[in-house]
Amino acid sequence: MNLLIVLRTLGMLLLCEAVTMIPSVIVALVYGEDTVSAFTVSIVATALLGFALFSVKVKNNIIRYKEGFAIVSFGWLMASVLGALPFLFTGVFTSFTDAFFETVSGFTTTGATVIEDIEILPYSLLFWRSFTHWLGGMGILVLTLALQPALGVGTFQILKAESPGPISTKLTPRVNNTAKILYTTYTVVTLAEIIMLTIGGMPLYDSLIHTFGTVGTGGFSIKNLSVGAYNNVYFDIVITIFMIASGVNFSLYYMAFKKRRITEFLKDKEFKVYLSIIAVCTVLITLNLSAEVFGSVQESLRYASFQVASIMTTTGFTTADFDLWPDFSKAILFALMFVGASSGSTGGSMKVIRIYLVFKYMQREVNRLIHPRVVKAVKLGNMPVQEEVLSSVMAFTMFYIVIFVFATLIIASQGLDLISSSAAVAATLGNVGPGFGIVGPSCNYASLTAFSKILLSFCMVLGRLEVYTVIALLFPEFWKR
Amino acid sequence: MNLLIVLRTLGMLLLCEAVTMIPSVIVALVYGEDTVSAFTVSIVATALLGFALFSVKVKNNIIRYKEGFAIVSFGWLMASVLGALPFLFTGVFTSFTDAFFETVSGFTTTGATVIEDIEILPYSLLFWRSFTHWLGGMGILVLTLALQPALGVGTFQILKAESPGPISTKLTPRVNNTAKILYTTYTVVTLAEIIMLTIGGMPLYDSLIHTFGTVGTGGFSIKNLSVGAYNNVYFDIVITIFMIASGVNFSLYYMAFKKRRITEFLKDKEFKVYLSIIAVCTVLITLNLSAEVFGSVQESLRYASFQVASIMTTTGFTTADFDLWPDFSKAILFALMFVGASSGSTGGSMKVIRIYLVFKYMQREVNRLIHPRVVKAVKLGNMPVQEEVLSSVMAFTMFYIVIFVFATLIIASQGLDLISSSAAVAATLGNVGPGFGIVGPSCNYASLTAFSKILLSFCMVLGRLEVYTVIALLFPEFWKR
Repeated sequence: MNLLIVLRTLGMLLLCEAVTMIPSVIVALVYGEDTVSAFTVSIVATALLGFALFSVKVKNNIIRYKEGFAIVSFGWLMASVLGALPFLFTGVFTSFTDAFFETVSGFTTTGATVIEDIEILPYSLLFWRSFTHWLGGMGILVLTLALQPALGVGTFQILKAESPGPISTKLTPRVNNTAKILYTTYTVVTLAEIIMLTIGGMPLYDSLIHTFGTVGTGGFSIKNLSVGAYNNVYFDIVITIFMIASGVNFSLYYMAFKKRRITEFLKDKEFKVYLSIIAVCTVLITLNLSAEVFGSVQESLRYASFQVASIMTTTGFTTADFDLWPDFSKAILFALMFVGASSGSTGGSMKVIRIYLVFKYMQREVNRLIHPRVVKAVKLGNMPVQEEVLSSVMAFTMFYIVIFVFATLIIASQGLDLISSSAAVAATLGNVGPGFGIVGPSCNYASLTAFSKILLSFCMVLGRLEVYTVIALLFPEFWKR
Repeated sequence: MNLLIVLRTLGMLLLCEAVTMIPSVIVALVYGEDTVSAFTVSIVATALLGFALFSVKVKNNIIRYKEGFAIVSFGWLMASVLGALPFLFTGVFTSFTDAFFETVSGFTTTGATVIEDIEILPYSLLFWRSFTHWLGGMGILVLTLALQPALGVGTFQILKAESPGPISTKLTPRVNNTAKILYTTYTVVTLAEIIMLTIGGMPLYDSLIHTFGTVGTGGFSIKNLSVGAYNNVYFDIVITIFMIASGVNFSLYYMAFKKRRITEFLKDKEFKVYLSIIAVCTVLITLNLSAEVFGSVQESLRYASFQVASIMTTTGFTTADFDLWPDFSKAILFALMFVGASSGSTGGSMKVIRIYLVFKYMQREVNRLIHPRVVKAVKLGNMPVQEEVLSSVMAFTMFYIVIFVFATLIIASQGLDLISSSAAVAATLGNVGPGFGIVGPSCNYASLTAFSKILLSFCMVLGRLEVYTVIALLFPEFWKR
């Protein structure tokens, strides 16, 4: 393990993080809030630590996969610890656990909150809280790579550890060019949503907040009732569309732009399956709601489509308390928490491509039972998928389920009921945010024990980094020479 | 597909089934019940249909894997349809769906019931109901093979389709010898429990019923409160021990007997993992119960050990309403419904060996991440496990989970709450019996819709035949030449 390059990269990350806190100071100044000093102290502390680590003298700047794993896992941990400082210094939280939970929830774009009344908090702090979604959505280390031209040799390992996905696409041979392309695309989508929301009459500040929550698929709002507080069909539609757009593999936007062909999207199997799942689930829930909850199909469709898009993309904005919906609709939403968005998007959970490959794997196994001598390669579109990729996907799926089961058991041991425990784990591991029961849309994570909050924070990071990056560090073999 | 041999074997199966109904007539005569005619008509109907099918002229008697699948799947369906006749002819059920559900639940050793008050039913009918557990436990086709010396060439395919297990053990080269050995061992265990229960003072009839329920890991009782109705520590202990014993691979008993060495058990990895899971879960639930429910550790241990053994072996007897226990205990029991007993036992669900192999697979995948060039074979004890076996286990696990999720969605669409829906599916797919909520230990499956009952009957058969045997028939490829 090349520990020095790990430390140096972490230093770079913290320097970046210090810079990303500056816009919140501007918000504080604009609104004349007394949070300026709290942010300034946080920035200085983060920058000083960052500078200290960055000044480490490295003997060689080679980053291999082990260093990649360590940089990303510890990077997310450190960024969250330092990102929690503004919450503590402004006095919003007195408990470090709460501040840490909220920051991890921000960076991992989960959107689970421990704040009971959001609407009384200072604008600048809410800005920082939502801005962490934007930063974490595309990846804090991808941002670091995009800003820094020459961090070391093998920075692709960092990109791979932060955005694993079963099948990685290098958009360009140079990693920081890829990182720049991703962030540029991301910025374009972000600006588009801000414009659309402000055109519809949403105040600029509110539209910034909800755009960060949408494009990062985070879900932090500045309203206790989330997007539902506006009760505005136009906002609902715009946010639904942008949630779905943010759950798409971002490299597809780049490819479509580069080749000037919108049909690039339709070549992508994952994209088609992703849209199909959203469509089918929206129809099913609309039928269920129009029969049992709302009078009209139109109203049912409005709430069904928003909530399906929100859960499927793991955003977590809400316009209705789906915990009060019929159990069939709830069951569908619960299942969607395990599916998640597309690989290479800002969304979390298992990802459509993995679910698709699992089904293809199952199908092949039955075919082998019927024709024992014929074993065909699993295909994704026209491309055969390597056996190692399939094994990795199958093991990932089982890791995800096993972590879900064990974490639920531990949360239940803290006295939470079965539905709330399992939903809390599914919603944090899948980076969704709101769950069911005591962690449902009208509630929050404040009442949980400190131990539960730490465990769920860990689940959020595990989910965001897609399990392996963090799990590998927990195996003794990782640390052997 | 050699359809004629399939029909002929099904005929043989029904002839066997007709014979297995005779003891119920004796019970009816002993207790002077007016059910004699109902049973006689059922026996005649089953025997006539059996004889008609058995008389089919076969051109060749070769049974390949396709015929094996068809014989076992259709065999279980037909045996359940005809086994339902006594329930209908005695007038206990007026609905065929209910009679079918109860019979499938019996043969698959699930033990889920749609009878609201068991204690008012005739002894002879309750005898038949529990006897189906005993028959289904070791397998109705295994019984047919044991009784019939020469059914065809390749009868091992039938054995394999009825008791799949990831790693099959042929105890002897001749299939009907294997079947005989299995049924002899089974009979010895059965007699041992009957003796132990009657020694303790349980009436002979009651001890027969509860022994069938135990050794078949079924769980039908003749008391509304199940084994808890006796409130007898001795019975609890005897039944706990025999439930655990029936969840062990039966070939281990034969090996230990043949080699006259009790240590044969300790050579088996699955056996050790199986006992460890029971021990750990018993300790955890005992601690939880003694802190929150019962006054003493002793009482907690009594109820914890019985319920853990019952759920883990998928028996489903109860001595306490575990649905009222703290959520931590409930969560553990819920998780155990997915584990199940050992392969080659009479227990259901995923089986310990599969869970163990899934964990080894996950471990190997992390090791491959750390050492990409070294791929070691997964080992079971000292034996390397073939890659095809591993793929089959991984796909099986995913099939099991996917079926669980979709069946839960469908049951929830019938208006059942999430906990009850998911528990009903887990408890039927895993052949456990009682679940949580509306299908908890103090309730039954009577209030479900007819559609739900049919779906859950299908889940019981899917679970008992370990998925593939039935699933394969649903693929169009199976029926192609």
